[in-house]
Amino acid sequence: MNRRPDTLLDRTLAAITPVDATTLAKAEARQLELLKPPGALGRLESLGNTLAAIYGQCPPPMPTPAVVCVFAADHGVQAQGVSPWPQEVTVQMVRSILAGGASVNVLARHTGAHVRVYDVGTLQELPEDAMLRNRRIAAGTADITRGPALTPEQCLQAIEVGIEAAREAVADGYRCLIAGEVGIGNTTPSAALISVFTGQPAAHVTGPGAGAEGDRLQRKKEVVARAIQVNGATAADPLATLAAVGGLEHAAITGFLLGAAAQRVPLILDGAIVCSAALAAVALAPDVRGYLIAGHDGAEPGIRAALDTLQLTPVIDMDLRLGEGSGALTALPIVQASAAILRDMATFASFGVSGKD
Amino acid sequence: MNRRPDTLLDRTLAAITPVDATTLAKAEARQLELLKPPGALGRLESLGNTLAAIYGQCPPPMPTPAVVCVFAADHGVQAQGVSPWPQEVTVQMVRSILAGGASVNVLARHTGAHVRVYDVGTLQELPEDAMLRNRRIAAGTADITRGPALTPEQCLQAIEVGIEAAREAVADGYRCLIAGEVGIGNTTPSAALISVFTGQPAAHVTGPGAGAEGDRLQRKKEVVARAIQVNGATAADPLATLAAVGGLEHAAITGFLLGAAAQRVPLILDGAIVCSAALAAVALAPDVRGYLIAGHDGAEPGIRAALDTLQLTPVIDMDLRLGEGSGALTALPIVQASAAILRDMATFASFGVSGKD
Repeated sequence: MNRRPDTLLDRTLAAITPVDATTLAKAEARQLELLKPPGALGRLESLGNTLAAIYGQCPPPMPTPAVVCVFAADHGVQAQGVSPWPQEVTVQMVRSILAGGASVNVLARHTGAHVRVYDVGTLQELPEDAMLRNRRIAAGTADITRGPALTPEQCLQAIEVGIEAAREAVADGYRCLIAGEVGIGNTTPSAALISVFTGQPAAHVTGPGAGAEGDRLQRKKEVVARAIQVNGATAADPLATLAAVGGLEHAAITGFLLGAAAQRVPLILDGAIVCSAALAAVALAPDVRGYLIAGHDGAEPGIRAALDTLQLTPVIDMDLRLGEGSGALTALPIVQASAAILRDMATFASFGVSGKD
Repeated sequence: MNRRPDTLLDRTLAAITPVDATTLAKAEARQLELLKPPGALGRLESLGNTLAAIYGQCPPPMPTPAVVCVFAADHGVQAQGVSPWPQEVTVQMVRSILAGGASVNVLARHTGAHVRVYDVGTLQELPEDAMLRNRRIAAGTADITRGPALTPEQCLQAIEVGIEAAREAVADGYRCLIAGEVGIGNTTPSAALISVFTGQPAAHVTGPGAGAEGDRLQRKKEVVARAIQVNGATAADPLATLAAVGGLEHAAITGFLLGAAAQRVPLILDGAIVCSAALAAVALAPDVRGYLIAGHDGAEPGIRAALDTLQLTPVIDMDLRLGEGSGALTALPIVQASAAILRDMATFASFGVSGKD
């Protein structure tokens, strides 16, 4: 893929380094000093250690405040009828988020997180709003069963919107990033990306999304397989694959994840769309993986396939399949609890508690 | 078992009625009106519906503020060396809770919950403290491998301490109750209760607790089997079983659960000790089950056995094995999120969002 030299993407990739192994070891040692049997807090311990390694501080700072950046776009592949929902619902859902009534708003308020919406390419343009950033690259993607979703330039632009979103969030003081998305039809490109990057057959990683059932689900699986074949998408060229069978929000979220890693802040993954972008981000820069926390295992089969490849264990598993960042926000208080444990629990030494026999 | 007539226990059992099926149906219907594909919030939906049925209100009130009541006691069976920790650690752990440095304190502060400690029978008496309620019934239990842990009167007293704790908490305005516990050796009586009430062999439901491994774990399994046999404990007489192979905190927590159900407030279960008490409570009053939310599936095998028998699905599964209420507190924000969804999400009608094809 032809690329401008020294792009924001190039500079971001160059800035990504592994999480801090020394701090990870310090956190692991500290867990053993805390007033509990060794390992008794299970995955709350490993989560806390991960946060310490990401921030390079033990105990880690609290991962607050958190922000969920919701990337919205439309998909040409909806011409194949992959979703039972009309395409106008993308913009209607964005409007409901801007009005504060969507699940992402409710869960964000409940957890003290903030919401930002990035329009990277809905069919219709949205009116101005304080919560909304207009970063429109195109009015939706092209149909991936007939060729690439995006030109290489559009794909790079979308990635850079995501990188900028992460930079803006960290500059504004956010210490924990969450990616969400809205886009009717967007589990179809996600399934294509997951199939390519995990090597699993399209039929295994394609699920009902927001409600494709029966014949429609069967057609969706065929659409995913055809899109991969028509575009000759392979894991060997992540940028080309993202442009070919991805979407504007998938590319933006890929950039958002790269931006989080470059700035050493944790990123809590949401559902299938965000997990598919995580595969692309890790393909571009393997060290990104250390900055990712798997928020949840959802109902969509691609999530588990992606997380297995990423070797990440989800914090929760509540059978969610809503997107918008809802799974990551549901997991957020647990991620924060893991930091609180490392920061605030007393030690055996401080309380004079007896050890084991 | 001989009992005083018209005890607080009798009156509490008489006050327990099923959760509200009409409100449950209303909540289920409301989930379908909310701005999301039907069922897309998975178990967040069923949790919210459960809360509505418990409170008898749809949408349910927020389950806040929450209080965790930690019941502390010692166990004569520690004479058999079931735990690698010296028995003095029970009181040391209580002291660390009163000082605010234990995991239950950290997680409670993180979730906005409050902590109360009930001494129902530690070996040593604790000094007065604002957080501590002295409700001592005995200085620990008798060794369950040689006879009953408690006399029938002690058991009833402990149950009533738990009922009073729930009444006091609700009178003080708490809308969500959590039971925690501290007691070196207390997973041994828990395993015995779980074995009796689930019908599973002692060896299947006895785990390492706070660190019994190898020979010690093998001995612990034998101790649990012997205790059941020596006492002739059977599921047919729950009160006698609780007195025979339980403990002071197990009996108090049983009462706490009964008290929560009688007052129609949700109770989030913690680990093996609380789950064993839940089996006893449901054996005494089957309608209690509807008021219970399984907080977590932990590392101790008895938890899963108990939850299977109770037909409850745990909110989270983080491999915790600390007790104190830590698992329930980790799950609390998710329980609260489920109520927020039912209360605050917009409907399709209110936003004019299009339906499916």
